[in-house]
Amino acid sequence: MRTDLERFFTPRSIAIIGASQDFGTISGQPLKHLQSHGYKGTIYPVNPRYAEVGGVKCYPALAELPETPDLVLILVNASRVTDMLRQCGAKGVPYVIIFSSGFSEVGGGGVNLQQALAQIAREHDIGVIGPNCQGMINVADSVFAGFGSVFSSDYDPGPVSMVSQSGGFGFSVMNLSAKEGGLGFRQMVTTGNEIGVSTLDFIEYFIRDPQTEIIAGYVEGLKDANRLIEVGEKALQAGKPILMWKVGNTEQGQRAAASHTANLGGAMALYGAAFRQKGIIQVDDIQDVVDYGRAFRSKRLPQGNRLAIITISGGAGILMTDEIVAGGMQLAQLSVATLDKLREFIPSFGSLLNPVDVTAAIFNDLTLINRTLQTIIDDPGVDCVAMINASLQGDLAATIAGEIVAVAKQTDKPVFLSWSARDVLAQDAYAQLDAALIPHYKSPVRCGRALAAVSWYAEAKRRNESQRDEKPLVIERPEAKKMLQGRTADVAEYEAKRILKEYGIAVTQEALALSADEAVAAAKRIGYPVAIKIQSPDISHKTEAKAVRLGIEDDDALKAGYEEVVANARAYKADAKIEGVLVQEMVKGGTEAILGVTNDPLFGPAVMFGLGGIFAEVLKDVAFRLAPVTLSVAREMIEEIKGYPLLTGARGKAPADLDALADAIVKLSALAIDLEDVVAELDINPLFVMEKGKGVKAADALIRPVVKSRERVNE
Amino acid sequence: MRTDLERFFTPRSIAIIGASQDFGTISGQPLKHLQSHGYKGTIYPVNPRYAEVGGVKCYPALAELPETPDLVLILVNASRVTDMLRQCGAKGVPYVIIFSSGFSEVGGGGVNLQQALAQIAREHDIGVIGPNCQGMINVADSVFAGFGSVFSSDYDPGPVSMVSQSGGFGFSVMNLSAKEGGLGFRQMVTTGNEIGVSTLDFIEYFIRDPQTEIIAGYVEGLKDANRLIEVGEKALQAGKPILMWKVGNTEQGQRAAASHTANLGGAMALYGAAFRQKGIIQVDDIQDVVDYGRAFRSKRLPQGNRLAIITISGGAGILMTDEIVAGGMQLAQLSVATLDKLREFIPSFGSLLNPVDVTAAIFNDLTLINRTLQTIIDDPGVDCVAMINASLQGDLAATIAGEIVAVAKQTDKPVFLSWSARDVLAQDAYAQLDAALIPHYKSPVRCGRALAAVSWYAEAKRRNESQRDEKPLVIERPEAKKMLQGRTADVAEYEAKRILKEYGIAVTQEALALSADEAVAAAKRIGYPVAIKIQSPDISHKTEAKAVRLGIEDDDALKAGYEEVVANARAYKADAKIEGVLVQEMVKGGTEAILGVTNDPLFGPAVMFGLGGIFAEVLKDVAFRLAPVTLSVAREMIEEIKGYPLLTGARGKAPADLDALADAIVKLSALAIDLEDVVAELDINPLFVMEKGKGVKAADALIRPVVKSRERVNE
Repeated sequence: MRTDLERFFTPRSIAIIGASQDFGTISGQPLKHLQSHGYKGTIYPVNPRYAEVGGVKCYPALAELPETPDLVLILVNASRVTDMLRQCGAKGVPYVIIFSSGFSEVGGGGVNLQQALAQIAREHDIGVIGPNCQGMINVADSVFAGFGSVFSSDYDPGPVSMVSQSGGFGFSVMNLSAKEGGLGFRQMVTTGNEIGVSTLDFIEYFIRDPQTEIIAGYVEGLKDANRLIEVGEKALQAGKPILMWKVGNTEQGQRAAASHTANLGGAMALYGAAFRQKGIIQVDDIQDVVDYGRAFRSKRLPQGNRLAIITISGGAGILMTDEIVAGGMQLAQLSVATLDKLREFIPSFGSLLNPVDVTAAIFNDLTLINRTLQTIIDDPGVDCVAMINASLQGDLAATIAGEIVAVAKQTDKPVFLSWSARDVLAQDAYAQLDAALIPHYKSPVRCGRALAAVSWYAEAKRRNESQRDEKPLVIERPEAKKMLQGRTADVAEYEAKRILKEYGIAVTQEALALSADEAVAAAKRIGYPVAIKIQSPDISHKTEAKAVRLGIEDDDALKAGYEEVVANARAYKADAKIEGVLVQEMVKGGTEAILGVTNDPLFGPAVMFGLGGIFAEVLKDVAFRLAPVTLSVAREMIEEIKGYPLLTGARGKAPADLDALADAIVKLSALAIDLEDVVAELDINPLFVMEKGKGVKAADALIRPVVKSRERVNE
Repeated sequence: MRTDLERFFTPRSIAIIGASQDFGTISGQPLKHLQSHGYKGTIYPVNPRYAEVGGVKCYPALAELPETPDLVLILVNASRVTDMLRQCGAKGVPYVIIFSSGFSEVGGGGVNLQQALAQIAREHDIGVIGPNCQGMINVADSVFAGFGSVFSSDYDPGPVSMVSQSGGFGFSVMNLSAKEGGLGFRQMVTTGNEIGVSTLDFIEYFIRDPQTEIIAGYVEGLKDANRLIEVGEKALQAGKPILMWKVGNTEQGQRAAASHTANLGGAMALYGAAFRQKGIIQVDDIQDVVDYGRAFRSKRLPQGNRLAIITISGGAGILMTDEIVAGGMQLAQLSVATLDKLREFIPSFGSLLNPVDVTAAIFNDLTLINRTLQTIIDDPGVDCVAMINASLQGDLAATIAGEIVAVAKQTDKPVFLSWSARDVLAQDAYAQLDAALIPHYKSPVRCGRALAAVSWYAEAKRRNESQRDEKPLVIERPEAKKMLQGRTADVAEYEAKRILKEYGIAVTQEALALSADEAVAAAKRIGYPVAIKIQSPDISHKTEAKAVRLGIEDDDALKAGYEEVVANARAYKADAKIEGVLVQEMVKGGTEAILGVTNDPLFGPAVMFGLGGIFAEVLKDVAFRLAPVTLSVAREMIEEIKGYPLLTGARGKAPADLDALADAIVKLSALAIDLEDVVAELDINPLFVMEKGKGVKAADALIRPVVKSRERVNE
């Protein structure tokens, strides 16, 4: 499929199949909008019913056109779209936008029609956008190829390019951001059902497009989600932040999963992991795009998360503090030298503690603004500065803005403003700030939120750079792969742990016994006390089947226990295939954790870590990352969960062996990659994390192999 | 202190002490603003330096005025304020706004000055507003008594009255809400350091003021927080929602507390509890005030939380769904009858599932809007309706707005709109909606958030009404109070549990032994196994002192254990007063919970519930309510925590005795009220919640008595 999208956004000629003379209708609008916005290329209306449309010669069929258009817009009824797309293929058209609805979004026959479209697009190598979309606007080159209310307005081009799976919402983002938020867009494209050119294709193009500075996206779901990490990496390297909606978070539809990992690893967990890994900024509302867009336009990223606030309103300073701390930043600790300097000119009724309350007295001597700002910016403990000017307006506002611009020009540190004057009352001040790309916000809360977004992004970028050279661990175990190939039933504990061992993950000492006597022999080798557990591919929940006994102290108890768990297993499931009874050391001490792999159909393998039992199951306190996971990322996962203090000595426990835990996560990641073709889900539950220096030990494990759904036996 | 605040907001005359002829200065501004906005009363500038200010006769001193003004504004230097306030007292002035800074906010001598002011105000019964504030605006009556940029503009009066402890931020809320948000204010007052008339005094006045429909507040801290519940109740009964900022949430300053309850019960926990109990809506930003204000202006509250969404944009429907579900609402399940009706006129490529996607085809036959909306509103399973009109504009927008208004008038159910057209392109449509008080929002996210706020408030109101007749349990135990009076040391387990027993809270069987032989005798009565624990007012953390032994099975072990815990206690703290060794039944099974009381200096007694151990200590998963707590509120607390599933049978556990748990919470609340004067903190940790029907059992408890800080011995 084609991805030379420059041609799509700047087509030399556009054909409109189904063009209507009634400009009020959907099929009439594109020609009207192209014309009224001054499209410079050639327009070819195609409709056998007309000789001309909008003063332009109309053709009865695409084949009759004197040239091959760069872009074709298809606006006919769904039933006729396949035919038209075939004609585009015959003509060699590179890009087609299919506006028509009535495909997979309506289910039934629409799904088949859509498959047919995709097939034609592949055969003819057509870059299809849509179906079920609202088209595209290239503001910079005046290409308004679509329909909808927002096409009637003119726009000034700006730094943002956006791709949206929703037409109505996407165009409203562009319209409100540009017109009410003052943040212009460069390109805007809606992709609807996305049978061809995808959201990530467009994002990759925006990364390459030299004039796009900021990328925005609205996503319901990515069919090529496995590319998200790679595309995110390119955007990070290019220094182009991606502002992203991921919606549909309340959907329930989870597939039935055997493991906790797969149950917890729904789409949102994996999107969230990918976004975090590559610094993709999630947005909630249109105002976020405007606010964060202004912030990123300044092209300044803080070196750390320490903010100094200068304010003339104590209350606003407190509000901003609450917001930035919630967003992961902290108030900078000003140095003694800085405080000494400030003391010289800040009134005694001000406050030198950050937020620095300079009081309105600062406006009696305007050089004070310059000196205060400069002094604080110069403090090496300050990564960025926010100044709160309340509702200052008029000439005073303009003068102060000039002072701020002068100081800000001398530094690379971000300087943000919270300034609540209405636009009409501080026009001159705001114009100076805009010209110098100094972000300003009407409320301290919005200013703080934008600062936190920039700080989060800068941290993600630093983290990513420091991790770029970390080579992921690669382990290849062809025997393990072979062992799992073609399996249809869940792989029970004994075998699953043998596979873990192959990848260097420590497991409990254990042996599979086929008789009570074998069990006793094994227990003598391992040492009492031992645990025993039934091994059956047909019994995934051994405890529920009462087929587990813990803390067996001697031979007699072991023999009795052996018979009991076998009997209970048979009672639980008469036809269960019983592979034996696992005799296992009892682990003493340690903290129960859970590790897992879910091999997502869209994202590929992802690794999960959490504390065991209620933490994972009830509180869902777990961390996900897409594989491969390097050592430093494994560390992040461990520190990310709320229960982390339990591993570092909370409630009088000994600190846990975090090195061994991180090592096990990395090895599990290597396993997940090596066995991607054969492992669908994997739980290590519990993994005992022993105290510092004593390692980890997998006490139970379960693998669900990759099987075609028809062959699945455990559901 | 005076609270007839009508006189404050509509003074017949105003004196300005320290009035300046320079209208650019702070002391010059109030006269200018009063005049330019057309204040209808008499203005008396007071300044010995001038004969007139702004064309008005100026007096050398307040005593010289021909009458007693209703309101005096004091704008002189901090050092002269006490003198001026005394003069106000001598003249019998009812209300004084002190603008001057330099009081408690600067610490040191400012604190003493402020105390002196408060003393004068009390002596003369003056209603003081401030010091360190920016004054007041009564828009409806054109009283602009203050200074600041926003005083230069004119405003249309609206339904909101606001009180703010921050001048700069408060006035920016009013200015931006009124001018950019289209939500007018009626009154706005800033209270600064609040030595006299408090935030809650103003809120009580707004509740009484017939023309105030919505109340807004910005609060850093309430000195009379104990009135919050009472004032909140009045507001709920009057049907006037309170939109409230509570800021300073990242403050650390916790007092050293003996109990988990007091450690977890910081100011935010107690404000949060009070807000929840009385339906006070927390806001984050100015836009929230505008959005929620528009919503509440409609005066329609949903009967439940089930929303039906009608949309022409699938994407916007998904966004709104995410938002309302996150806000505690749910999508309504449309009835079969409703679906059958809709099927008649919604195109096949639309969606009948809620969100109902009517597609743009609805605009081909405008009667369809009416029919769709009416059909959905009539569904008894629908509590409120949101319609999403994307960016529709112009004449079509106006016609559609008319249709919506016509249908909305026929129902009491809330009808909200998400409509993204810019104001200038849908003026007529928006004007019709505004006139009919139908809330409309530029984004589906804001619309959803406002709906969720209204739904949350409506639910709080219903809950409050259903709980109003629930009498709180009252238990009076004068002996218990007497026992704790004058105590300075923490009350250890044995005694603390005897007090719990007095209030009907079940405790473990136990006896205090003063020798190993007494311990054996006690164990025989109680039955083995037993636990033993040192009892000393000087050892609050018995486990840390190694002065606890659990699971003692026989006499010999008990005797040895007795000597051991005594020895360990002495080793831990040589001079600890040892009251004996507690011999206690071992509780088998059950779930560990924690109950507690914190007697907050501002709020009074509050009750806490959580699950034990890590849940409370590491995850801070606890619920607070201000006492008294009734049975249904106790139930809410239990259901509110994240670990709740652990009490209802998660992970194969038997369901816990929630009735007994709720009963214990109610009894603890009665204790907290009865012993308010003597109990500062109380922990029951753990409280074992046994399985259904088997009750609860307090296994350990600690009481910190109320003592003057000088007498405290355990810190």
